[in-house]
Amino acid sequence: MMSSTVRIFVTGGTFDKEYNERDGSLFFKDTHLHEMLQLGRCRVPVEVRTLMMVDSLEMDDEDRELILQQCRKSDADRIVITHGTDTMAVTARRLGEAGLPGKTVVLTGAMIPFAFGSSDGLFNLGAALAFAQSLPPGVYVAMNGRCFDWDNVRKNKAIGEFEALAG
Amino acid sequence: MMSSTVRIFVTGGTFDKEYNERDGSLFFKDTHLHEMLQLGRCRVPVEVRTLMMVDSLEMDDEDRELILQQCRKSDADRIVITHGTDTMAVTARRLGEAGLPGKTVVLTGAMIPFAFGSSDGLFNLGAALAFAQSLPPGVYVAMNGRCFDWDNVRKNKAIGEFEALAG
Amino acid sequence: MMSSTVRIFVTGGTFDKEYNERDGSLFFKDTHLHEMLQLGRCRVPVEVRTLMMVDSLEMDDEDRELILQQCRKSDADRIVITHGTDTMAVTARRLGEAGLPGKTVVLTGAMIPFAFGSSDGLFNLGAALAFAQSLPPGVYVAMNGRCFDWDNVRKNKAIGEFEALAG
Amino acid sequence: MMSSTVRIFVTGGTFDKEYNERDGSLFFKDTHLHEMLQLGRCRVPVEVRTLMMVDSLEMDDEDRELILQQCRKSDADRIVITHGTDTMAVTARRLGEAGLPGKTVVLTGAMIPFAFGSSDGLFNLGAALAFAQSLPPGVYVAMNGRCFDWDNVRKNKAIGEFEALAG
Repeated sequence: MMSSTVRIFVTGGTFDKEYNERDGSLFFKDTHLHEMLQLGRCRVPVEVRTLMMVDSLEMDDEDRELILQQCRKSDADRIVITHGTDTMAVTARRLGEAGLPGKTVVLTGAMIPFAFGSSDGLFNLGAALAFAQSLPPGVYVAMNGRCFDWDNVRKNKAIGEFEALAG
Repeated sequence: MMSSTVRIFVTGGTFDKEYNERDGSLFFKDTHLHEMLQLGRCRVPVEVRTLMMVDSLEMDDEDRELILQQCRKSDADRIVITHGTDTMAVTARRLGEAGLPGKTVVLTGAMIPFAFGSSDGLFNLGAALAFAQSLPPGVYVAMNGRCFDWDNVRKNKAIGEFEALAG
Repeated sequence: MMSSTVRIFVTGGTFDKEYNERDGSLFFKDTHLHEMLQLGRCRVPVEVRTLMMVDSLEMDDEDRELILQQCRKSDADRIVITHGTDTMAVTARRLGEAGLPGKTVVLTGAMIPFAFGSSDGLFNLGAALAFAQSLPPGVYVAMNGRCFDWDNVRKNKAIGEFEALAG
Repeated sequence: MMSSTVRIFVTGGTFDKEYNERDGSLFFKDTHLHEMLQLGRCRVPVEVRTLMMVDSLEMDDEDRELILQQCRKSDADRIVITHGTDTMAVTARRLGEAGLPGKTVVLTGAMIPFAFGSSDGLFNLGAALAFAQSLPPGVYVAMNGRCFDWDNVRKNKAIGEFEALAG
């Protein structure tokens, strides 16, 4: 199948949270993406770039504009964005409404930090990379093994899962 | 996107190897598929069925015939097969040559048992489920984050990775 | 060697912190002690009792009085207390000054939650149980593989390790 | 408490078994001891030396003689030996009968390789280091959180646990 390079943009989120043993808080240090790709023995040609390292609740319009511009400027037609789950659907909508012609963009994240043994991160990353390689151009959210169009997805915070909008 | 049920057939392989603490050997007990789907917080409707629990080096023609018949008989159009890596390409070829019209069949496995902390299994399962949902009918091998057509894949045993046939 | 029952009192601390995937905070649910003892294949006769589930920074005099009374009332001569690291030395001093004649009491904890893959908790629990079985009566802190007398220990917060008081 | 250097002799055993992804076998590469001590945030001064890397079923008289001589020659009064469980009691007896005056020697191991997520190794190492620091001179086996004298221990292979000889 297709083996053009996949661009991975890192923006932070639960994916990359670390435990701070000094004060017992959670914080961001470096991304775990490289470690995760190695664990998955990934041989898809990828280029990883960290755009920011933030909790998605703290992401503002400017941050989303930056992500959009980076997607636009990228040579890659296949893009994965790691992102906090709380506002993942908001960023997806921003990118979808702006439009990224010819590009397949997949946002993904994790409910549990990768540094925890029990993270869903590795599963989600595998799925996101697969969707990014196989789906037609568009903006998608890949969580829970499923893939949603940007205009038909929300996080159900009560159960901690993503779902299509009612209708 | 599509949310029809995905059928998962378990055949064993490294994926499901356990450590036997009595004699220090590796063996098969039950599949880890359910545990892995739970860890990945998978909400794709799946039906898991164990067809056999064997090392793929010990799989014979009869075993492959059984897998083929199970794929044929299944109502599902989307099928994932967990399989040992050593003869994964052989089974893919058997299914591909026989033909499974209208069905998307994805074989996957792991280089390291899931019971080991450092397994690639969760990454591969996420990717396989995503490819099974998004690719057109055909028989594929999903490993190393990539997806190969059944007639263009082999395991490179020297480096422990899957690759397209030379050409 | 000795195989009288060891009483384990759980008071919370980093040991037992969980990740709350709803809001990204850390919280206490149930203790991981049983799971840890099972993982360690512990066959020391133990009785586990949860006294409280608190961050040790929030522990007050009343909490420490409760711990003291529970140690006094316990039939067991060998006691392990799991405790947050921040005020472990404070509680050890409280117990040591009050005096617990005939009892070997060992406080231990973890710098990283057990639920994280990379926790020091299992190592510390193994050491604490061993010290509790082998040391003469007294109150001790067991961290970093070492064991300190209650009146000669402090947490060096800058480096996150326990050390003897300067002499 | 005592903080003289503890000598750690590595002899192999389940502790250090790795999964060979080429052929699905288990094998020895390097010891995990340094990694385990780091995970446990151990600050006991230790010196680690690998004497051999063998399955304890393949250990012969000559190997045991070597271990004995290394214990004799060591400056350290506190010694931990990592060892396969199958003949751990045999080696303990060899050392105990030969006699190592003034030295506290503790043999330990694991039922599950450390490289597996679910290993008892870290718990056992914590306990062994604690017993080595706190017990009087003698030769001991530390497994299952317990400590046995060299002349009163056997592995119960049916249940995979260590126990005192019937009496």
